[in-house]
Amino acid sequence: MQMIIDGKMVDKKEKIKVFNPANDEVVGQVPLGNKNDLKKAIMAANRAKKDLNEISSRKISMALDDIAQELSKNWKDFSKSLTLESGKPIKASRDEVKRSVETLKLSAEESKRIYGETIPLDAGIGGKGFIGFTLKIPLGVVGAITPFNYPLNLAVHKLAPALAAKNAVILKPSLQAPLSILKLLEIMYPYFPDGAVNAVTGRGSEIGEEMVTSEYIDKISFTGSVETGKLISRQASMKKITLELGGNDPLIVLEDADLEKAVEGAVRGSYLYAGQVCIAVKRLIVDEKVADEFSALMVKETRKMKIGDPLDPKTDVGPLIGEKAASDVEKVVAEALNEGAELLCGGKREGNYYSPTVLDQVTPSMKLVSEETFGPISPIIRVNGVDEAIQIANSTPYGLQSSIFTSNIHHAMQAAKEIEAGSVMINKQSTFRTDNMPFGGFKMSGMGKEGVKYAVEDMVRTKLVVINTI
Amino acid sequence: MQMIIDGKMVDKKEKIKVFNPANDEVVGQVPLGNKNDLKKAIMAANRAKKDLNEISSRKISMALDDIAQELSKNWKDFSKSLTLESGKPIKASRDEVKRSVETLKLSAEESKRIYGETIPLDAGIGGKGFIGFTLKIPLGVVGAITPFNYPLNLAVHKLAPALAAKNAVILKPSLQAPLSILKLLEIMYPYFPDGAVNAVTGRGSEIGEEMVTSEYIDKISFTGSVETGKLISRQASMKKITLELGGNDPLIVLEDADLEKAVEGAVRGSYLYAGQVCIAVKRLIVDEKVADEFSALMVKETRKMKIGDPLDPKTDVGPLIGEKAASDVEKVVAEALNEGAELLCGGKREGNYYSPTVLDQVTPSMKLVSEETFGPISPIIRVNGVDEAIQIANSTPYGLQSSIFTSNIHHAMQAAKEIEAGSVMINKQSTFRTDNMPFGGFKMSGMGKEGVKYAVEDMVRTKLVVINTI
Amino acid sequence: MQMIIDGKMVDKKEKIKVFNPANDEVVGQVPLGNKNDLKKAIMAANRAKKDLNEISSRKISMALDDIAQELSKNWKDFSKSLTLESGKPIKASRDEVKRSVETLKLSAEESKRIYGETIPLDAGIGGKGFIGFTLKIPLGVVGAITPFNYPLNLAVHKLAPALAAKNAVILKPSLQAPLSILKLLEIMYPYFPDGAVNAVTGRGSEIGEEMVTSEYIDKISFTGSVETGKLISRQASMKKITLELGGNDPLIVLEDADLEKAVEGAVRGSYLYAGQVCIAVKRLIVDEKVADEFSALMVKETRKMKIGDPLDPKTDVGPLIGEKAASDVEKVVAEALNEGAELLCGGKREGNYYSPTVLDQVTPSMKLVSEETFGPISPIIRVNGVDEAIQIANSTPYGLQSSIFTSNIHHAMQAAKEIEAGSVMINKQSTFRTDNMPFGGFKMSGMGKEGVKYAVEDMVRTKLVVINTI
Amino acid sequence: MQMIIDGKMVDKKEKIKVFNPANDEVVGQVPLGNKNDLKKAIMAANRAKKDLNEISSRKISMALDDIAQELSKNWKDFSKSLTLESGKPIKASRDEVKRSVETLKLSAEESKRIYGETIPLDAGIGGKGFIGFTLKIPLGVVGAITPFNYPLNLAVHKLAPALAAKNAVILKPSLQAPLSILKLLEIMYPYFPDGAVNAVTGRGSEIGEEMVTSEYIDKISFTGSVETGKLISRQASMKKITLELGGNDPLIVLEDADLEKAVEGAVRGSYLYAGQVCIAVKRLIVDEKVADEFSALMVKETRKMKIGDPLDPKTDVGPLIGEKAASDVEKVVAEALNEGAELLCGGKREGNYYSPTVLDQVTPSMKLVSEETFGPISPIIRVNGVDEAIQIANSTPYGLQSSIFTSNIHHAMQAAKEIEAGSVMINKQSTFRTDNMPFGGFKMSGMGKEGVKYAVEDMVRTKLVVINTI
Repeated sequence: MQMIIDGKMVDKKEKIKVFNPANDEVVGQVPLGNKNDLKKAIMAANRAKKDLNEISSRKISMALDDIAQELSKNWKDFSKSLTLESGKPIKASRDEVKRSVETLKLSAEESKRIYGETIPLDAGIGGKGFIGFTLKIPLGVVGAITPFNYPLNLAVHKLAPALAAKNAVILKPSLQAPLSILKLLEIMYPYFPDGAVNAVTGRGSEIGEEMVTSEYIDKISFTGSVETGKLISRQASMKKITLELGGNDPLIVLEDADLEKAVEGAVRGSYLYAGQVCIAVKRLIVDEKVADEFSALMVKETRKMKIGDPLDPKTDVGPLIGEKAASDVEKVVAEALNEGAELLCGGKREGNYYSPTVLDQVTPSMKLVSEETFGPISPIIRVNGVDEAIQIANSTPYGLQSSIFTSNIHHAMQAAKEIEAGSVMINKQSTFRTDNMPFGGFKMSGMGKEGVKYAVEDMVRTKLVVINTI
Repeated sequence: MQMIIDGKMVDKKEKIKVFNPANDEVVGQVPLGNKNDLKKAIMAANRAKKDLNEISSRKISMALDDIAQELSKNWKDFSKSLTLESGKPIKASRDEVKRSVETLKLSAEESKRIYGETIPLDAGIGGKGFIGFTLKIPLGVVGAITPFNYPLNLAVHKLAPALAAKNAVILKPSLQAPLSILKLLEIMYPYFPDGAVNAVTGRGSEIGEEMVTSEYIDKISFTGSVETGKLISRQASMKKITLELGGNDPLIVLEDADLEKAVEGAVRGSYLYAGQVCIAVKRLIVDEKVADEFSALMVKETRKMKIGDPLDPKTDVGPLIGEKAASDVEKVVAEALNEGAELLCGGKREGNYYSPTVLDQVTPSMKLVSEETFGPISPIIRVNGVDEAIQIANSTPYGLQSSIFTSNIHHAMQAAKEIEAGSVMINKQSTFRTDNMPFGGFKMSGMGKEGVKYAVEDMVRTKLVVINTI
Repeated sequence: MQMIIDGKMVDKKEKIKVFNPANDEVVGQVPLGNKNDLKKAIMAANRAKKDLNEISSRKISMALDDIAQELSKNWKDFSKSLTLESGKPIKASRDEVKRSVETLKLSAEESKRIYGETIPLDAGIGGKGFIGFTLKIPLGVVGAITPFNYPLNLAVHKLAPALAAKNAVILKPSLQAPLSILKLLEIMYPYFPDGAVNAVTGRGSEIGEEMVTSEYIDKISFTGSVETGKLISRQASMKKITLELGGNDPLIVLEDADLEKAVEGAVRGSYLYAGQVCIAVKRLIVDEKVADEFSALMVKETRKMKIGDPLDPKTDVGPLIGEKAASDVEKVVAEALNEGAELLCGGKREGNYYSPTVLDQVTPSMKLVSEETFGPISPIIRVNGVDEAIQIANSTPYGLQSSIFTSNIHHAMQAAKEIEAGSVMINKQSTFRTDNMPFGGFKMSGMGKEGVKYAVEDMVRTKLVVINTI
Repeated sequence: MQMIIDGKMVDKKEKIKVFNPANDEVVGQVPLGNKNDLKKAIMAANRAKKDLNEISSRKISMALDDIAQELSKNWKDFSKSLTLESGKPIKASRDEVKRSVETLKLSAEESKRIYGETIPLDAGIGGKGFIGFTLKIPLGVVGAITPFNYPLNLAVHKLAPALAAKNAVILKPSLQAPLSILKLLEIMYPYFPDGAVNAVTGRGSEIGEEMVTSEYIDKISFTGSVETGKLISRQASMKKITLELGGNDPLIVLEDADLEKAVEGAVRGSYLYAGQVCIAVKRLIVDEKVADEFSALMVKETRKMKIGDPLDPKTDVGPLIGEKAASDVEKVVAEALNEGAELLCGGKREGNYYSPTVLDQVTPSMKLVSEETFGPISPIIRVNGVDEAIQIANSTPYGLQSSIFTSNIHHAMQAAKEIEAGSVMINKQSTFRTDNMPFGGFKMSGMGKEGVKYAVEDMVRTKLVVINTI
């Protein structure tokens, strides 16, 4: 794959290899871009702004729609490519492609729905006789920085809304999984003026700061770690920023929950892409009264998980993104066991693989649950009643999504009001996300919302036009 | 009291007497207006349209705010006046005055929030280069027809939003309880240009059709019976219409309900203004498993109701609006008993008074519950499970508000989805209404929504302005 | 072509022939449906309501999108079919097909954007502790009645928004031009449950009233004559109605206008489909100071209009819909000439054809301009200044769209404020319409708005759900 | 005056004196707060969050309304106080008090209009059977930092919307003009729980960074210089920020402008509070064809300006905020004259006073117009045609408001589209601002919008609640 700068495919002598986490084989390579490449992309994007603004929203929409259709047609290729570079089970990769098609389509649609408003100026002092209305105009140039875990759809959630609002974009994809999104951009860029769609594959240490601090970029949209997110928020100065950072999402199970559904949610939520998902279920907070039954069911269902080659459609859990990731999980589990947690099943590492693991008797202070752990782990924290459950759910610097299983409407509403998170799911695990819903966390989990409509809203500026009619 | 036509108080030789339902004494009189008076009001309103449009929204808002404050200052007088003409317990009259103040204030506020929108015309074929925005402009003249049961607040819910949107108004109040609203209009009309605020007190048979069919009235907003509502919808031709008609609101009690709260809701909902309220609880649909307990509690609480002089602040239940109303209730109760219903308490009429009455073993086909009964009646219909409860709740041509008491979230959501009514209240009786919420029924219960913001939306027209910028 | 009832194609022995207005040859026939057929369709639609409601908005959207693509693929067939049945020049038929594709696509998109709102109940008296949100739910069954002039797109503007909101639909198309829309429905109906999409081809006198008065239809959406519109508004009783009726749209030319653009607008607006368009330019109101120059240019450009076979891509003006239509135009022109109007060019009838005609010295009282004339006529009314121009523009019972040509911003804004019409176009003729803009007239021109988003808003009801959280 | 911390008035031994710019006399003093005081306020605000959240929106609204009324009643005191501390002509001070009342009232109203939305989840993959709605909840604690020029209303524009959305607030007012706002806060704080309303009067160098970097503050809302704004944007890290920074607003006069109105606008816009206003007219960009006439009229009107004691109701122009401010203006004017500008009138400094000054032949590169000059200066830049006018208007790092005088609709629309500023006023100077309109600049002029509704939108977070209904 190559970079895309100013309407051209750009290669470099130096390359970065991309490895298949399932077998550590090289599955592709991308050029190693540098600051200079990024600067060229920035200048090109700034030139493209005007051209983009000359295109009607209708044409922009048609372009995004066509791209959605091309991606849809090639879903098999893209799914395979996703699995090869990320180790994600092919079932999940297919879902990601399907969702990326949806995200593109929703963006195509939102591009035609950028409404302003007519302001009742005569409701203000001195406003009689004036007509005022707002125009929603593009920001200019948007820089997008995306992670390895949803390398396609998370990038599309930034690029497509940005383009929908007639912004030029520059993507810095994850170097661990850059292939599928570059493939998509190769399809995408010819639909737009030169310089409107750019991708630079470089190391964060080399080009990240340049992107974030450049005065020729108007917005940074970042999905990744809290640490980098904080750094960006300091460096970006007066740019607009959207940050989708980590999560430590709780799943609360009360005594009156439908335990089968709760377990189903916990299993889906914990092991999705081996738990390497910001909205994966990271903590199972279970009422003591049903904890034994819950944990037994949990073990039973966890044991059904098929571990193996991610290209196999039957595989439920594949490898982690790399050996370091797997051994990090190994370490925090060992630490938890050391501190009194009880291993109910799983708990083994083989190379990049880590087996789906249920731990009981976990306490909130264990690093396993006090920090964000990216692994196929189901740590059970036992509590007494809804109040303690919510209090523990909130005892973390994160606040992305959250969930509670209960059949009691009062407890459900209490959770909805008291859990400090961007979303509270009732009788559904936190991995629930539709691409049209407002998505984004509280506290250290981020700033701003994505979800296509909301992302587009953050890709425009408001200009007020006032006409004196007297 | 007098009529208000074209910025003047207008009297007539012939009068209509207003009686106190508590003792049948005359408490006031109003002139008997005729078609000619109405025609004058219509012509005045049409002249006033232009003047109103010249006033800034800010001034309109200040006027409505001032009127709210005057009403608030005189709350004692108005409460007493309401009770005298309607027989409503003074507690409830005070609530009505307080709410009328709120409705006026909300209208004052909404008058400054009539936003239009800027349309993305370039998203359509041939729309490139055009700027389009909408202006929300007044309809012109609004005719309001209101009932006796909330003679103040229901009229304010029409007049204030109409004026907020710069429409001229003509009110035909109920002849049974016209005094308080005329008193308010006497305060109101001098704030606006002559002809902007009119009230004509005439018989429906004399002036109703003229109002509904006049080509110089742009909208009819009616609260009253289904029968009249239907007639209006036929006669009004191409006018806009809002109809708030009757209700037959169910209160469902499931086996897992908090019975004390359910009974509290049922009592409040059934006996409010002796049940003469469109959103009164008209049918108690109770799961067989808890029906005995529920009915026992219901009787206990019903017996606590203090019947008596509505001017006494301790009175819970006063008279019905007149003797015919009371004997109508007597008849349908007798019929129900005849058909197998069981009288648990109450069931007595003295003049205009009817005692709070609990009936068990009521079946859906009894006229008492198959039609809208305006009286202090709690008819218990026993059912098995949530499905039957909802099915019976829906087995009526009405669909105003509704309620269900349950602690189960699935049953609550099932009710929210399946009950065919404008509102579904979970763990609260149907008399719940805030003046800012969208209010209005399905099926025969009406057309259009009130609630100040929603009423104002229905008091304007949308004009699109398109500017060719090329 | 056949009717579509309850998921089946339905034929009848008795047929109605469809004629090509260009040569009076038969180009097709449709079954003559009767009341019984309509009743079957109504019952089927009522059965289909539930099935529709079970389908996710995503699936509904995909269905409408697929239909849009099928129509798009077959644009040539549909264009030809449109021209054959309506006599519309093929250029214009192609535009109509293209717009119908857009209308379908916009509907597919809006079906996924039916948002409710969360209400701040605690802002009202007694609302503390309650959560309230609205669900926007389908009306049920929508009856659509459409005219001959845009037989495809005007029907799509009703059917697609109705389906987008999960309503079942029954179409009564114009018997003069039913072929293309039936062809589209043949594509459409299999995408939805049986009974969701119905079409009954019957005489208005036979089935119109049944449709409008049936208590099993929840909304009537009609485009057609004022006379019928009024009748419907009386008969429809408590149904929701949308009426898009006639227009008598003015095009004002002020002395500071760009005359070339004004003439271009007038020509396009007057002769589009031989003026048989509700938003055709029906009155040219020209400032005396530039009237000579304007009329000279107008004649010059009118003479360039190519009259002829509507299937010829070079044809600008084809036949009227039938001989009666043409001779009606002939009569009102003759009458105008009689009363002092001056014929500058055109003015001839040959069979169904009427030549593009410019008349000067027309006065507002002439029937030609005081009523809606469906013909290729450009009647020039001379005025002095903007005030008189606006006053004459408003001197009609219609108020659909309108336009003004001027380079002066004050005059433009005065027109925007003072012209009583649903839309005011500045420097663009009234035939401007994008399918996403709010469209619908004031006064006798109608009730309600179309334009997909606005049509969808009128295809749903609001249900409020309140949860007591205390 | 004293500070307000945790529901108490707090004094300090060390004081800061406040001087009357008109005569350098001391008109008051405030305690010199330090970091410790600020920390106490921050902790108190964090404690108050919960209490605030327990109050209904209705009560919050009533509190803000009552405060508005108290301010309104005391308008004379507040006006005088404003003039004494700021040197603002009493006429302008009265306007500011009146507008502060309006801002409070609008906030009281918006506090009842914080709507969320119901999301059509079933439009997304996997969303069938889920109900989702959003709750708009407070951010927590808002830090406000405000400047000397509108010491009352600009603070109210932050505090009132923050409180309307149930946030606790901490104000750091300008030390040059802190008296009036502290006076208002003294009225305000008892209406709210202890700690909800705080004010700390300290040096920016001492307490500014603490406020901006504290992890216990959730949002910073700042109005002031670009330099400080940039610093804040870096330091605030993941806090929300709103920045209202400087402006360099152009007033364009085209050849077809109504010159009298243009001059009226220029005079009002240039000399308002001696030009010490971020939206003052800072650059007059005049078409060469009318520049002589314009400048003659400008001089004539400028000479009518009454300079003098700001307490005198006839005074148009008072002193600058201090001698340094005045001598800074003196310097940039001298520099401009040196570089070829032509002095037409004014140009004299006496102490803190600087006379209203018209300069012709100014060029864009002169510091007087290339940077933001806070003084009563009207610098005329001559241009040829609308294109050059817009190009020069845009040749600055600022983009707050802007204005154009022209009677040509095409030029007006060109300006509306091409001028890079938050607002474009047509035939009105840039000082036009109603408190309900969206206000906020592009480029270096800021981030985010104020105007009560828009400020409130930026004072809340969105929480999504999803209920599984299956």
